[in-house]
Amino acid sequence: MSIGEQMLAVAEAAKQASRDMAILSSATKNQLLLNMATALEDHSARICAENERDLCVARENNMAAAMLDRLTLTPERVVAMADGLREVALLPDPVGEISGMWLRPNGIKVGRQRIPLGVIGIIYESRPNVTADAAGLCLKSGNAVILRGGSEAIHSNRAIGAILQQPLESMGLPQAALQVITTSDREAVAELLQLDEQIDLIIPRGGEGLIRYVANNSRIPVIKHYKGVCHTYVDVAADLRMAEQICLNAKVQRPGVCNAMETLLVHRDVATTFLPQIVSAMRQSGVEMRGCEAARKIVKDLVPATEEDWAAEYLELILAVRVVADYEQARQHIETYSSLHTEVIVTNDYRLSQRFLREINSSVVMVNASSRFSDGNQLGLGAEIGISTSKLHSFGPMGLEDLTTRKFIVLGDGQIRE
Amino acid sequence: MSIGEQMLAVAEAAKQASRDMAILSSATKNQLLLNMATALEDHSARICAENERDLCVARENNMAAAMLDRLTLTPERVVAMADGLREVALLPDPVGEISGMWLRPNGIKVGRQRIPLGVIGIIYESRPNVTADAAGLCLKSGNAVILRGGSEAIHSNRAIGAILQQPLESMGLPQAALQVITTSDREAVAELLQLDEQIDLIIPRGGEGLIRYVANNSRIPVIKHYKGVCHTYVDVAADLRMAEQICLNAKVQRPGVCNAMETLLVHRDVATTFLPQIVSAMRQSGVEMRGCEAARKIVKDLVPATEEDWAAEYLELILAVRVVADYEQARQHIETYSSLHTEVIVTNDYRLSQRFLREINSSVVMVNASSRFSDGNQLGLGAEIGISTSKLHSFGPMGLEDLTTRKFIVLGDGQIRE
Repeated sequence: MSIGEQMLAVAEAAKQASRDMAILSSATKNQLLLNMATALEDHSARICAENERDLCVARENNMAAAMLDRLTLTPERVVAMADGLREVALLPDPVGEISGMWLRPNGIKVGRQRIPLGVIGIIYESRPNVTADAAGLCLKSGNAVILRGGSEAIHSNRAIGAILQQPLESMGLPQAALQVITTSDREAVAELLQLDEQIDLIIPRGGEGLIRYVANNSRIPVIKHYKGVCHTYVDVAADLRMAEQICLNAKVQRPGVCNAMETLLVHRDVATTFLPQIVSAMRQSGVEMRGCEAARKIVKDLVPATEEDWAAEYLELILAVRVVADYEQARQHIETYSSLHTEVIVTNDYRLSQRFLREINSSVVMVNASSRFSDGNQLGLGAEIGISTSKLHSFGPMGLEDLTTRKFIVLGDGQIRE
Repeated sequence: MSIGEQMLAVAEAAKQASRDMAILSSATKNQLLLNMATALEDHSARICAENERDLCVARENNMAAAMLDRLTLTPERVVAMADGLREVALLPDPVGEISGMWLRPNGIKVGRQRIPLGVIGIIYESRPNVTADAAGLCLKSGNAVILRGGSEAIHSNRAIGAILQQPLESMGLPQAALQVITTSDREAVAELLQLDEQIDLIIPRGGEGLIRYVANNSRIPVIKHYKGVCHTYVDVAADLRMAEQICLNAKVQRPGVCNAMETLLVHRDVATTFLPQIVSAMRQSGVEMRGCEAARKIVKDLVPATEEDWAAEYLELILAVRVVADYEQARQHIETYSSLHTEVIVTNDYRLSQRFLREINSSVVMVNASSRFSDGNQLGLGAEIGISTSKLHSFGPMGLEDLTTRKFIVLGDGQIRE
């Protein structure tokens, strides 16, 4: 079989399996996830041994330390994967929920009911734990899932996939509900992305290069975010001690993730007080500060910020700072440079807080809280399958509900249309 | 300017305008639509005169009568367009709605609030009334809209677009919130479909050819449906008089639309009673009946149905009939041939009705009602911008809410992440 035929067979089998998965009871799906968790722990040694094969190749190829760490599985990390599945088992099942039902003048009752999307494709890079995490969320929401991880994790993913399929088999469920693509053929992804008759959604997880490749080559809808250029605006009416805590947390607590702050906007009437304070605090945490001209008049030794800095997603201990004349200028700055991810205002001005919430249409807008809360778990979705910064279907962190859609149901009594 | 530069300028202006439109009050948007309705009626003569220019060209080109009818505007049809805008003005505004807010253990409050999508592109064929209808829905939901109608309606659309822009101008709103593309350059659509940084959603309205072209060439998300192969299953426990009424209505009342029935499935235990009855009734309404082998044993002179008939969207007075052994076979037939549009069961068996609602995952599933109710107005959405038979974002008839998305809002009190 050509790689195209192989992928078509995988996708057809997934579509077939998705019909069975769609009508499973919540109890069955939860038991499946619990059995998968047990299976992972029972085969921890095998997973770690297969992972070691990937690590050997990676070391030979001089993989960078940070990537090596992402690729590494330990017995503790296998337990963490298993516990992740157990947590998802405990979440409410979105499938079947009927949100509102109404009566039409002719007597038909109309409602909308949640159903699974069908078949979900996950394209990801080196973290093998994604295999279990994504599978758990897709199966809990009644979907079939096709997982394609990076070639550097191929032995780990193959082992995890085979182990996760065992509970499907022992429970009499279709094994094709969870398929891991482990061919080394690089064309596999390109072929999968053409199968819009079989696959309902593609979620790429990884660097911007991977995501752009998937978005540009897919006939299937893709939910994605390229980057997070998150802003915090410290207003004239801010509690400056609170502002300092929020900014420090947003920049320093975990700088390498998409919900970390990248640009700080400060109202000019508090800049002379707040800027020296925050620059000192940030520098104590090792942050390089880059500032606009007005900021550099207040703190002379700031690195000059260029146009590129306003658009940058540093993902490291660098922060761009701009002094703005007022809220309106802050709003315009955000509008110009926003990645639609997360924006924060720190203020005690009630009216302005409401205006910020209304006028800023990024996927997450916050008053007086750290942008680091922009995360499915932190926002209370229970788990996160990804984040969307485009507006169709989902906008912001995505949980189980985002892996479903709604159909209309109509209860009649013989009505016909006049 | 090249056509690409022209379309980029249009889309950039729309994006800029969309920011103003997003924060308008419901009262302002409603007044805008009412003013647009008045403007259409005030300029009815001009619209009809421009329409006559399109009709002249169409007659010279020997346009088919049905298409000519779709292209034609009369004073009555202009009033109908105006009334359509007034109806949309009366609908509830989805923008700003907060659906649930919850408290996290750390004290932050998290909610989801509806916001407009941003910029919506409508690509359509010969009906010039779409210009006003689609504009009304997009503007009411706080979006900017770019309309590209068929070249055969170019004078009509140009006139309607100019007239609809007047109320925007007189109310001090950005005219770029409503732009009609009236260049005859066929590349205009191809260029628009590349502008995924500016345009958030494309809705094609027209024949399958147009829709496939748009879907295959767009970098922007597209909401679409190709066809409606709607099934009605008459169960053994059906009230056969009700079944006859529902089937007749579903096939005959307006056969040329996507929610008309195309295939009738009949349980074999009622086939000897029901088939002669429905064939006779259908034939009296001029319907050509095509049947499976079992059906032709009961009604000998049916046209034999082929594999192609099961997949056909006739859009005319032809109906395919299949006798099935039981519900399970009906379900499998629907699963195989469904276009995911609308499926109906006629039965008085409560348990089976619930099973049908659960197991059939088309966008609209009905018990004991005509498939002709599968329409935004009939289902109570107030108006319809289109219908989606793919599952992302929307599934089924789409109303105002489908032209919006939700952002997360977070109200904190200084919380930072541990």
